[in-house]
Amino acid sequence: MIPTVQWHEGQVRILDQSVLPERVQFVDCREYETVAEAIRTLKVRGAPAIGVTAALGIALGAGQFQGSEAQPFHAWFLKVCDRLASTRPTAVNLFWAVERMKAVYNREKANPIAVIQSRLREAAQEILEEDVRINRELGRHGAEMIQDGDHILTHCNAGALATAGYGTALGVVRAAWEAGKRIRVFADETRPVLQGARLTTWELQQDGIPVTLITDNMAGALMKQGKVQCCVVGADRIAANGDVANKIGTYSVAVLAKAHGIPFYVAAPASTIDMQTPTGEEIPIEERNPLEVTRVHEGPTIAPLGIDVWNPAFDVTPASLIAAIITERGVFPPKDLGLHFT
Amino acid sequence: MIPTVQWHEGQVRILDQSVLPERVQFVDCREYETVAEAIRTLKVRGAPAIGVTAALGIALGAGQFQGSEAQPFHAWFLKVCDRLASTRPTAVNLFWAVERMKAVYNREKANPIAVIQSRLREAAQEILEEDVRINRELGRHGAEMIQDGDHILTHCNAGALATAGYGTALGVVRAAWEAGKRIRVFADETRPVLQGARLTTWELQQDGIPVTLITDNMAGALMKQGKVQCCVVGADRIAANGDVANKIGTYSVAVLAKAHGIPFYVAAPASTIDMQTPTGEEIPIEERNPLEVTRVHEGPTIAPLGIDVWNPAFDVTPASLIAAIITERGVFPPKDLGLHFT
Repeated sequence: MIPTVQWHEGQVRILDQSVLPERVQFVDCREYETVAEAIRTLKVRGAPAIGVTAALGIALGAGQFQGSEAQPFHAWFLKVCDRLASTRPTAVNLFWAVERMKAVYNREKANPIAVIQSRLREAAQEILEEDVRINRELGRHGAEMIQDGDHILTHCNAGALATAGYGTALGVVRAAWEAGKRIRVFADETRPVLQGARLTTWELQQDGIPVTLITDNMAGALMKQGKVQCCVVGADRIAANGDVANKIGTYSVAVLAKAHGIPFYVAAPASTIDMQTPTGEEIPIEERNPLEVTRVHEGPTIAPLGIDVWNPAFDVTPASLIAAIITERGVFPPKDLGLHFT
Repeated sequence: MIPTVQWHEGQVRILDQSVLPERVQFVDCREYETVAEAIRTLKVRGAPAIGVTAALGIALGAGQFQGSEAQPFHAWFLKVCDRLASTRPTAVNLFWAVERMKAVYNREKANPIAVIQSRLREAAQEILEEDVRINRELGRHGAEMIQDGDHILTHCNAGALATAGYGTALGVVRAAWEAGKRIRVFADETRPVLQGARLTTWELQQDGIPVTLITDNMAGALMKQGKVQCCVVGADRIAANGDVANKIGTYSVAVLAKAHGIPFYVAAPASTIDMQTPTGEEIPIEERNPLEVTRVHEGPTIAPLGIDVWNPAFDVTPASLIAAIITERGVFPPKDLGLHFT
C-alpha cells in the first residue's frame, strides 16, 4: 500500500485521498498550515490518520521556527498546536496526538530549540510507526470474530487510508484474509464524500480481497437476504460508556444489524477511546458544507439551487447496538471499557 | 406543475426526468418504441406514471398501424403491448395498464381499425386523467394521518413526477399542506438514481412546501434526534398480504422507523395492489446496470474500474413494518387488503 502520510525530504507528504481512485497524487507540505488545510479539506481523513498527520504537522511547524529564544518558540509551538487542533472537531485521536506532542515539548523544553525540534520530529515518527503496529495487533484480535466464508459489511473507510497503514476495520478484514479465511466485504458507498466507493473498494482491490460495492440504502435489503454475517466499522470517538461516534450512516447500519440479529463490531485503537467524554451525547458532531450533498465528488449539481440541506459528518451509535469493541488490547463489550482503559 | 406525460400534437410528450433539475426538457415520441425506451432508461419513472405512459404508448403504437385488415392489426397491437410490458419488471401498474388497454381493444375489435385506434387513444387519456383524480382522493385520505407541525420523511419520488400529476406520497403531503398544516418534508436523496435529490426537492420547491435534503444514510440519525414524525413512501407493487415492493432503500427506512416508533405509511392507487401476487417473495426485483452505482448522474466515475457492484432497483418491505396503506378508497392496515381489493 502507498503510505497515507510520511516524511519525505524534510516535508510532510500526504496522499491526496480527495482525488482517489482516479489519480494517485500527493500533497507535499513545507508548512504546517498546508497540513492543517489538508486535514480540513479531507485530503487526509480517518481518525487515526488525522492524529498521525497532526503530529507530523506539529513537528513540521515547530521546525519552521527560526529564532533562538525559548519564549517566542513556546508561543509559536502553542499556535501551531492550536491550528492543527482546530481542523476537525469530532475525531478524538486529533486531540490525543496534540496532547502527546505537547507532552514531548514539555519534557524537552529545557533543551536548545534545535534539540526540541528534533525530538518532536522523532516523536511524530514514533506515533506513525506505533499506529501501524497497533492496527496489526487490533487486526489479529478482531480476526478471531470472523468466520471462514463470512460476508462483512463495512461503512466509510476504516482502512490503511484512514490510518498510517493496515487499517482498523479493514485491519480486521486483512488479518482474517491473511489467516486464510475466504471472506467478502460489502462496502457501503458512504455518501456524501463516498469514502466507501472511492477508498475502501480501491484498497481492498489492490490487496485482492473480494469486495462488492453497494449504495448506503441497500444495506437493509442485503441483510434481509442473509448476505451479511457481521458488520465491522471504525470510530472517530468512543465515549466512556461505549457509545461510538463514527461516519454518518453508521447508526443506521447498527440499527439494521440489530434488527437482523447480525453482530456489529467497532474496531479502533485505544487512542480513540475518550474516558473524559461520559456518553455519546457529549461528543461534538461536525456539520459540513451543504455542497458535499448537492454535488457528488466534483460532479454536476444533483439538487435544485437554494435547497435546504442537513449535512452532519458523523452520528452516534449507542453502546447497546454494539456487540464488541476491537482494540489492540483485546476485544471488549462496550460497557466494560472502564475496566480496561483510563 | 409541468405534466409528466401528455398528448402533444398527436405525439406522446414526456418530461425527461433524467436531466432534472438542471434542465426542463421533453422527449416527443412519434413511435411507441421511443416511449418504451423512455420508460426503460428512466426518462419517465414511478409506478403510476409508468402505467399511464405505457397506456399512451400503446395507443400511439396502435395509431402507427396503417393497414386495413383486422388480423395484421391484431398481431401488431399485441406486439406493441408486449414491447411496452417488457420495459420494467417490478411496477405492477405497467401490467395493469397493458391489460386495461387490451380489454378496450377486445371490446372494440369488431369496429373499423380507425375507430379502434381512436377508442384506444381516448382510453389512454382517461387512464391519465383518472390517475390525477385518484391521487387527489388518496391525498385527501392520507392527509388525515398528518398532524400540524409534522416532519415527514419520504424516499425516492412518489410525487407529481411519478404519476400523471399531484402524486401519491407527495399527494398526501400536498393535501396536508393545502389543508393548512405546517409541515416539512425530509427527502432522502435516493441513490443510485437520486430521485429524491433531483425530483422530490424540485417539485416541492416549486410548490413552496418546505423540504430538506439528506443523504440516505442520515435517516437513522434524523429519527434518533426526534426530527421525524412519520414516513410516507410510494409503491411499485403491493402483494396480497400487504408486503410492498418500492425503491431500494425503502426497507431500510421502514426498519429504522419501526425501531424509533415512527409510523410508516405507503401511499398508492388500487392499481398498485396485485392480489395475484400472494407475498413480497414472489415480486420480481429488477437489477440494473452497475454504472448507475459507479457513476453519479452523468458525473465522474466514483469507484475503481472493474469493481463488483450489487444494484437491485427495489426491495420488499414486509407488511409487519407498515402502519397503513393509503389508497383512493381509504386508509387500510396492510393485512386487511383482501377485504377491500380483488
